[in-house]
Amino acid sequence: MDIIALTTDFGIDDPYVAAMKGVILSINPRVTIVDICHTIEPQNIAQAAFVLSTIYHYFPEGTIHIVVVDPGVGTERRAVLLITPLAFFLAPDNGVLSYVIEETPPEDLQAIALSNPHFWLFPVSATFHGRDIFAPVAAHLSLGTSPQDFGDQIDTLFTLPMPRPRIGEDGVLSGHILHIDRFGNLITDIRMEDLPKGNLFIDVGGHFIESLSPSYAEGEELLAIIGSSGRLEISLKNGNAAALLRAKVGSPVRISSLGK
Amino acid sequence: MDIIALTTDFGIDDPYVAAMKGVILSINPRVTIVDICHTIEPQNIAQAAFVLSTIYHYFPEGTIHIVVVDPGVGTERRAVLLITPLAFFLAPDNGVLSYVIEETPPEDLQAIALSNPHFWLFPVSATFHGRDIFAPVAAHLSLGTSPQDFGDQIDTLFTLPMPRPRIGEDGVLSGHILHIDRFGNLITDIRMEDLPKGNLFIDVGGHFIESLSPSYAEGEELLAIIGSSGRLEISLKNGNAAALLRAKVGSPVRISSLGK
Amino acid sequence: MDIIALTTDFGIDDPYVAAMKGVILSINPRVTIVDICHTIEPQNIAQAAFVLSTIYHYFPEGTIHIVVVDPGVGTERRAVLLITPLAFFLAPDNGVLSYVIEETPPEDLQAIALSNPHFWLFPVSATFHGRDIFAPVAAHLSLGTSPQDFGDQIDTLFTLPMPRPRIGEDGVLSGHILHIDRFGNLITDIRMEDLPKGNLFIDVGGHFIESLSPSYAEGEELLAIIGSSGRLEISLKNGNAAALLRAKVGSPVRISSLGK
Repeated sequence: MDIIALTTDFGIDDPYVAAMKGVILSINPRVTIVDICHTIEPQNIAQAAFVLSTIYHYFPEGTIHIVVVDPGVGTERRAVLLITPLAFFLAPDNGVLSYVIEETPPEDLQAIALSNPHFWLFPVSATFHGRDIFAPVAAHLSLGTSPQDFGDQIDTLFTLPMPRPRIGEDGVLSGHILHIDRFGNLITDIRMEDLPKGNLFIDVGGHFIESLSPSYAEGEELLAIIGSSGRLEISLKNGNAAALLRAKVGSPVRISSLGK
Repeated sequence: MDIIALTTDFGIDDPYVAAMKGVILSINPRVTIVDICHTIEPQNIAQAAFVLSTIYHYFPEGTIHIVVVDPGVGTERRAVLLITPLAFFLAPDNGVLSYVIEETPPEDLQAIALSNPHFWLFPVSATFHGRDIFAPVAAHLSLGTSPQDFGDQIDTLFTLPMPRPRIGEDGVLSGHILHIDRFGNLITDIRMEDLPKGNLFIDVGGHFIESLSPSYAEGEELLAIIGSSGRLEISLKNGNAAALLRAKVGSPVRISSLGK
Repeated sequence: MDIIALTTDFGIDDPYVAAMKGVILSINPRVTIVDICHTIEPQNIAQAAFVLSTIYHYFPEGTIHIVVVDPGVGTERRAVLLITPLAFFLAPDNGVLSYVIEETPPEDLQAIALSNPHFWLFPVSATFHGRDIFAPVAAHLSLGTSPQDFGDQIDTLFTLPMPRPRIGEDGVLSGHILHIDRFGNLITDIRMEDLPKGNLFIDVGGHFIESLSPSYAEGEELLAIIGSSGRLEISLKNGNAAALLRAKVGSPVRISSLGK
């Protein structure tokens, strides 16, 4: 019943993900491997952190996540195992676990540096720790090896600054676009509970939206809606909002309220 | 031994498919999940219906298919469970099951509207019923929950008009391109049994083909062949017929017979 | 505990891979199916052979690989089962198994032509032996059918000429780019043991590199490193070497030694 879930920037054209699966299945042939996403932009740590944040709550307790977006592979950057009440996370210590860390009470976090080479695949390459360190450690973890056997406990992990909306002196809520999905929906860092009360007035790329829609199909051409991760999304009915607005990750979204 | 098969337009870059898998595995960790296709063009219901039609016959009896191409998500459009002697199909009632319905005797079809929120994931988002309704219902179905428990039986389902070739007054068979595959092969709606007898004369985009080839490699440059779904295909030897002919889904193919 | 691994040029947009999975699971619902790669360039046999070569060592003994890059499908080209001490390989006899054959002692190779239609799916299409021959044979093999039951033993298999570096009269080692990965890393056919002793002087597309780097991050802008398949790679720190150098598969890499 164990699950190992993979999030990487290895793409789908190269044999890197398959090599990891081969290593895992050679150690634990009964484990269930799930692909989360392999088309994270090369070396885009923030994107991997976001993608992971939207799915790990939905997996069974005890799922083992491997997250390999690892520009520092082969250097002294640490490889870590983070344990929360929900799941295990194996990743380079470079910020890919930032949302997980932010969303878990500190007393529920336990971290271990992967320093015990006993569980690694030799020779360890300088360029592919996904295959040589993370995959075999995950497989042994799924077989019941105690987390402490993989290395020493550590007290701090590297985290990225998390984008959060701010309310300015003029009372305007300023957020940013976190992610643009395949449909061109713009997912912002503004959560439902961040929204001001009263009639909303949303400014995105010079276009204005004056209310929340109950569904994509029931909105106006350009619409705002609370999306599936509880965040404000900007969407174009039967179209692609990102293309229309030439929006990018990081682009601002500003919301004012016309009052109660 | 249960299988849940997924066909969506969610793409491979976003975490939507993974969220569905997490929900399914949280309810039934032993089920086998199979990806059919996740790169259906955004909101292209006809394409999803075609793709599904070419594969469901090959899966074990009792396979549970989830098909989520769902521009009406969050509106009053129905979510349904269609039961045939071969398989279960969970989908929005928007035509994605048209081929399944057309290919099954009406007396062998049973349909249920998913109206019982007991099996849904709360809060149900307005934008992602794949995760919040279809995935948990599929997982419970795989565990043996009776179909009737998910909602009330219904008598009609929405279907798309199915493209079919026609014979004109001049005796010419007129069909259309249904699908263009990765190799540039043009798959038509003309089945082997639709073909006129005698010597064929095939007109596609102003190019002419005068016989069927026994294989891709044994044909002329531009060739016609009966493909793996039993339909007439137009193909370019060692090349891409779609690029050569600038063909699109819906483009006409005309066949006359010089014989008999 | 049996594994069937799939390498094809069928892409991810079409239902071909899913049809193969349906056929396999209909015969052996308990087998684990692993996707190696489905985005081999259409009909690029050499690329499939390379991709396979980088992963088959990492899978459990007895894994059944299906490799379908098959421009000759439907002709008299043979379909074969190759057995090595490590794995089973089902493929057209067109060179996709060249690296496997080269890397295995001849006395450890056993090959069978798939000539017994008893295990095929009927009607056998002219265009899709992946579904109609390779998939059902793999599934029956995973259930314990004896290899000899699938056809007659054969003595020779078709192999491609393997790219290998050469040392010219001027003492310069000339190799070629074998593969370009998603990150723009150029993987060459030069193995660590091929490298001359002394200080290296690497010429790739008119750019020069004078040493090996211990990691991607610790190198200069353009760097050379021993990659995860034991081969020399050219890489651009925080960038895409293939784009910078306008390199292609087959482009030359020349190495001279200034030392000793």
